[in-house]
Amino acid sequence: MSPTVQEDVSAESISPFGKARSTVKGEPLSSDELKLQDDYMRASLYLCLGMLYLKKNPLLKEPLSLGDLKARLLGHWGSDAGQVFTYVNMNRLIKKYDLDVIFISGPGHGAPAVISQSYLEGVYSEVYPDKSEDEEGMRKFFKQFSFPGGIGSHATPETPGSLHEGGELGYSISHAFGTVFDHPNLIALTMVGDGESETGPLATSWHSTKFLNPITDGAVLPVLHLNGYKINNPTVLARISHRELEALFIGYGWTPYFVEGSDPLSMHQAMAATLEKCVLEIRAHQKKARESGKAFRPLWPMIVLRSPKGWTGPRKVDGHYLEGFWRAHQIPLPDVASSPEHLKLLEQWMKSYTPEKYFGADGKLIPALKNLVPDGNRRMSANPIANGGLIKKPLLMPDFRDYKLPCEKGGITEAPSMSNMAVFLRDIIAKNPHNFRLFGPDETESNKLAGVYEAGKKVWMGEYFEEDQDGGNLAFEGRVMEILSEHTVEGWLEGYLLSGRHGMLNSYEPFIHIIDSMVNQHCKWIEKCLEVEWRAKIASLNILLTATVWRQDHNGFTHQDPGFLDVVCNKSPEVVRIYLPPDGNCLLSVMDHCFRSSNYVNVIVADKQNHLQYLDMDAAIEHCTKGAGIWDWASNDQGQEPDVVMASCGDVPTMESLAATALLREYVPELKIRFVNVVDLFKLIPEHDHPHGMSQREFEAIFTPNRPVIFNFHSYPWLIHRLTAQRPSQANLHVRGYNEKGNIDTPLELAIRNRTDRFSLAIEALDRMPELGNKGASAREKLLSSQINYRTIAFNDGIDPEEIRKWVWPF
Amino acid sequence: MSPTVQEDVSAESISPFGKARSTVKGEPLSSDELKLQDDYMRASLYLCLGMLYLKKNPLLKEPLSLGDLKARLLGHWGSDAGQVFTYVNMNRLIKKYDLDVIFISGPGHGAPAVISQSYLEGVYSEVYPDKSEDEEGMRKFFKQFSFPGGIGSHATPETPGSLHEGGELGYSISHAFGTVFDHPNLIALTMVGDGESETGPLATSWHSTKFLNPITDGAVLPVLHLNGYKINNPTVLARISHRELEALFIGYGWTPYFVEGSDPLSMHQAMAATLEKCVLEIRAHQKKARESGKAFRPLWPMIVLRSPKGWTGPRKVDGHYLEGFWRAHQIPLPDVASSPEHLKLLEQWMKSYTPEKYFGADGKLIPALKNLVPDGNRRMSANPIANGGLIKKPLLMPDFRDYKLPCEKGGITEAPSMSNMAVFLRDIIAKNPHNFRLFGPDETESNKLAGVYEAGKKVWMGEYFEEDQDGGNLAFEGRVMEILSEHTVEGWLEGYLLSGRHGMLNSYEPFIHIIDSMVNQHCKWIEKCLEVEWRAKIASLNILLTATVWRQDHNGFTHQDPGFLDVVCNKSPEVVRIYLPPDGNCLLSVMDHCFRSSNYVNVIVADKQNHLQYLDMDAAIEHCTKGAGIWDWASNDQGQEPDVVMASCGDVPTMESLAATALLREYVPELKIRFVNVVDLFKLIPEHDHPHGMSQREFEAIFTPNRPVIFNFHSYPWLIHRLTAQRPSQANLHVRGYNEKGNIDTPLELAIRNRTDRFSLAIEALDRMPELGNKGASAREKLLSSQINYRTIAFNDGIDPEEIRKWVWPF
Repeated sequence: MSPTVQEDVSAESISPFGKARSTVKGEPLSSDELKLQDDYMRASLYLCLGMLYLKKNPLLKEPLSLGDLKARLLGHWGSDAGQVFTYVNMNRLIKKYDLDVIFISGPGHGAPAVISQSYLEGVYSEVYPDKSEDEEGMRKFFKQFSFPGGIGSHATPETPGSLHEGGELGYSISHAFGTVFDHPNLIALTMVGDGESETGPLATSWHSTKFLNPITDGAVLPVLHLNGYKINNPTVLARISHRELEALFIGYGWTPYFVEGSDPLSMHQAMAATLEKCVLEIRAHQKKARESGKAFRPLWPMIVLRSPKGWTGPRKVDGHYLEGFWRAHQIPLPDVASSPEHLKLLEQWMKSYTPEKYFGADGKLIPALKNLVPDGNRRMSANPIANGGLIKKPLLMPDFRDYKLPCEKGGITEAPSMSNMAVFLRDIIAKNPHNFRLFGPDETESNKLAGVYEAGKKVWMGEYFEEDQDGGNLAFEGRVMEILSEHTVEGWLEGYLLSGRHGMLNSYEPFIHIIDSMVNQHCKWIEKCLEVEWRAKIASLNILLTATVWRQDHNGFTHQDPGFLDVVCNKSPEVVRIYLPPDGNCLLSVMDHCFRSSNYVNVIVADKQNHLQYLDMDAAIEHCTKGAGIWDWASNDQGQEPDVVMASCGDVPTMESLAATALLREYVPELKIRFVNVVDLFKLIPEHDHPHGMSQREFEAIFTPNRPVIFNFHSYPWLIHRLTAQRPSQANLHVRGYNEKGNIDTPLELAIRNRTDRFSLAIEALDRMPELGNKGASAREKLLSSQINYRTIAFNDGIDPEEIRKWVWPF
Repeated sequence: MSPTVQEDVSAESISPFGKARSTVKGEPLSSDELKLQDDYMRASLYLCLGMLYLKKNPLLKEPLSLGDLKARLLGHWGSDAGQVFTYVNMNRLIKKYDLDVIFISGPGHGAPAVISQSYLEGVYSEVYPDKSEDEEGMRKFFKQFSFPGGIGSHATPETPGSLHEGGELGYSISHAFGTVFDHPNLIALTMVGDGESETGPLATSWHSTKFLNPITDGAVLPVLHLNGYKINNPTVLARISHRELEALFIGYGWTPYFVEGSDPLSMHQAMAATLEKCVLEIRAHQKKARESGKAFRPLWPMIVLRSPKGWTGPRKVDGHYLEGFWRAHQIPLPDVASSPEHLKLLEQWMKSYTPEKYFGADGKLIPALKNLVPDGNRRMSANPIANGGLIKKPLLMPDFRDYKLPCEKGGITEAPSMSNMAVFLRDIIAKNPHNFRLFGPDETESNKLAGVYEAGKKVWMGEYFEEDQDGGNLAFEGRVMEILSEHTVEGWLEGYLLSGRHGMLNSYEPFIHIIDSMVNQHCKWIEKCLEVEWRAKIASLNILLTATVWRQDHNGFTHQDPGFLDVVCNKSPEVVRIYLPPDGNCLLSVMDHCFRSSNYVNVIVADKQNHLQYLDMDAAIEHCTKGAGIWDWASNDQGQEPDVVMASCGDVPTMESLAATALLREYVPELKIRFVNVVDLFKLIPEHDHPHGMSQREFEAIFTPNRPVIFNFHSYPWLIHRLTAQRPSQANLHVRGYNEKGNIDTPLELAIRNRTDRFSLAIEALDRMPELGNKGASAREKLLSSQINYRTIAFNDGIDPEEIRKWVWPF
């Protein structure tokens, strides 16, 4: 029988306490260096506690009194010491080797750690001059933390040097990899929380090494912080055996080094030796690959740091464990306001860090410690890569007009909009060989974008088979990033953008919901950045959704969900944009616009199959620039009030709406029909709610103030009602869209089940014009019988009748 | 320097071809058994191909002609052989040891594998009598597959024996664990796709062993299927070294056994020996724990099956690789309709399985092979656990009225609604010790539900420290399941429900977006189950959201997102329910209702902090039963038309709306105000769009046909507009809600920034009644100045003024 964990693990072997135990031996720090480094850490921890508790008396020159405390105590102490410890040890190497390093705080809930470091580095005072390096500046610095109108307890956009908030957990490693792609000299020192490690996105992101090229990319140096506890539970990784833990990271493809214990001085020596070993190993791998010109996948080094939760705090308070237990997660002594004993204890604890030794009477860090700070932009909180907009270069763009699809007359020719756009994308990749990447979860080829591989293949640092030369498009040096994890590709792309580059994600439409929450968080990040003066705008996050709901007939119900748009619409109008180009030239125009934009999340929805083309390039540009408009060529209300408006948004819905218009005009020739198409979804909203919104006058000029509008929408119909809720004429809007009906159906049948097909739309229009009387009734009957007729053919043959696919605009 | 993968892995060592290579040696199958087993597999593979291609001529009695083929070829071949291979090998052990096993198909995209097995077992014909075990039945069985009106290419609800669709990847292991909790004799044989393995949810779910008790729970036997390729790329796990792969699963806490190759007969022997070894090891672990009464965490066995993608298909076609390459993922020969050579090749290939030997002239499986099928419900496709509603027992429920909070008069007393409900929940746990579990991502205590630990602690099979006795609430035998992975706890709960039990998930409101897509997929599953006659209804999936947006002031912007409701609203009205109880007694009533319900996803939103109480238990029951109604005690329009309707949905919004009402009545005493509260969100929708919807008459009786309604909503305001879009009076609805404004703010400030505070609401009401003239203007001024006054206090002190929290209803 196999061994069981009970036989294999002991509490001692996974204890976070005691003298340092480490894989790498050696004591690289002189006793002076050791003393200074520990002092620097203690100064930082004092600042952390000050942030959690104080609004006055920042240097505790006076005895600590209730009036010095914030009225509400908020913030996180648990991981502060471990993060500070790692940060200060890296500073030594930055200075020694002149390294280019950013710090990513996975457990962002220990923001005091990085904020205090930024303050010690002087960066905080540079970007926020009122938080100056003196007593009054320190007081303001303390008070603002987790205080109304101030900053939060995660590494938010207000935090210098941060590009990863850590508010929602799980993305530190994928973000880190995103930052080092195409930044060959960068090291992303990444603290990974052991709570965070339990999340799915984090668990799979360790495999990112299979996509990192040691010649063209930098390196991620993860420090898995085994803190022992989450909010109220032990963590899984802190409680498995050393054997399992080591095997896990070997299995993930890393070389794990352990640093474990709580004794500060021996821990500093162990961490100094281990970090240095890792940095030298990273450099050696890179050197080997770069000098030989032969890329390979090293077993990159990573560190497992096991230290007590709330390290350096009181071990027990009133008989209950604090240090080394989950009580240290947030405010370690929450009742200082009501307990004079605990207030005293807090004072003793804070004073035990001896702030008076590190901060002069004026509150300024003493020169001996200031000496430990790296120079200028080498300070991790000043690294411009963490403020990626600063170093962003505009994309070199080919002229999108050069890729136009011929379209002499609307609705006559079919063309592959998506694979045509792939040529444009290919040339963007070619023109920007170090500045743009395409990301996707193993769907790029399926999404008809394989044309891009001519300019950049798929990065693959794994083993190759003979078969892979047979159309596999794999390469060590590629520009397309594919792993079957929406979380990982989204995280990589976010990291890539946040560190000053450009890119796009392509995905099947239904499965983009897998990263709803990530996209939400990115929206929030870039929105807050707008409020932070020193942040420069980054490139937009472009998400191309294809394999859409209306052409998932054979994959069935699970693959049908166009509701990502609802999620995006809830985010701030300052940062979200949604486009549904109806044809290939509009798709080109929209993509060009998105790639040139900054600080948005652009969502583009377009099907990947062949589709009818409606607009030539000039018309497409004009239409996309307006965002919504009347298609005169498909309307016959010129100069008159229409009887009905047929409107559409999305490529498949547009085809059906146009066909419905054709049917109506055939059956009731005297009808005046206006045809409207919407590309830019936010045009529908009032102008005061979104920068793209139309005024009421513009809205009525297009949709009329009072005629029935049959609006065929790509996604769930309610979204249109929601966007137009404040429009006085919205009661005239009759919206059709996906209604959660479908399974294994032909495209036509799927549309009919959701009442978005040409017949249903035409019938709906007739039903809204009772004034047509018998004429309407007779047309209605014909439409119904055609619908039944086509359904029967489709059901018997398993495919839609030819006329449906090859429908031709008859006018 | 560490070894690199290039030095460590060779293409040979990870090749899926050749004679079997396996960890476990032995040839347990006699030559007769071996022959029969291989025949059985070949019969199954013939059926798979038949499903992909044929609509006629099912036994190929006639030469294969174009007319036999479906017009559109759809479906997946890639993983079929590996899944069939595993399935048939387990059948032997089911018969030998009388095992209780279900089969979970992670790569559901190989549904032909499980569907063909169900057909061979006779189960398919039992539940679908027209798909009978004869030639005509087989023809229909083939034709319906991926055919309009038929079944899909995943293990959809129509698939006997399936409780896991595999349409969206990543949940097979967590689902499997959910099924075996409290099913001590069950083995969930779980095929995990190597593409699926790259997803985050799957990657972390391997850690589920740390929560499985070998005494009270069954076992999961995973078979990681290294198929080599996804849709268009190699998979990560198929291309790492043997050493890394083995280390990875040891690190995850498993004992990995390898079965690798493509030679059928030696592969059968290897798999037979390996599966048997695993089953015996599982039984030995269970025996040891059960006989000693001492639970422990074994290193459970798992299997790595490496076989070629599209195994048993042609290796090369027209010079291009097929078997062992990603071209075998879907339809292996897609152009048989246009290529006579490929049609011929297909015929040869199908005939190579020699169907005529296995299916008699009548199309019935020959007795020699039928003999391999386990008996009755031991057939994996007949196991009632996979149709969990069949074995579901109702929960034993305490009377929720016994937990009522005192409430003599509305809005006077504060009480902890959530921790009070926890007592009810505790007693449900106590009364249903094997039938109910509570799930959550490390937030149960933070969510004020810690009271439940008295009846059932947190399951923890890891190591314990001394500290853990100090309020840690850990136990080998617990009823509360916590890991910091929303995906894993949701997957466990879904599996637990799908296999016939009951449960609830609790989560912070913002991070429930992490599982948007999982909840979507579960909704789709239970909706489709309604259309499948033989499926019995399972218990509802209850999701309690707390730590809501309005009380995330100190965690800031990342923790503020109430938009999960928008996602849920898009799902079918047949399966979704949303409740926002305004106080503690309503919360009890709603929870009781949800726990008794079947086949829904119930979402309950309630804050965890102390809140004002409004209704005594009788009133709460009446109010929740109606779902929405007028609160007479807070209204002064009795018997008259109101001037304005103040409406609310959600606990914090209700408090603010009531306070606004009080302010209005103080400042403009002659105003007639009606107060309305909505508990059941879908009451707002028209009755034809949701079973809970109100008729227009009911709607107007509550909201009036034409008076202004100031509606204060918990979530994004647009959702109310969307639900009421078809109400003629909706232009009178002025909705306030979360508007994506917030950061580190006091609760009042957060409300003010989103205009949901008492002052803003009262001002909004006045603005909608211009007829009030000077009186309105003067009241408006007072409100504005109060608002400014309170903001100033809050900003200076860091907390809201006492009057705001302790507000008392003045009438």
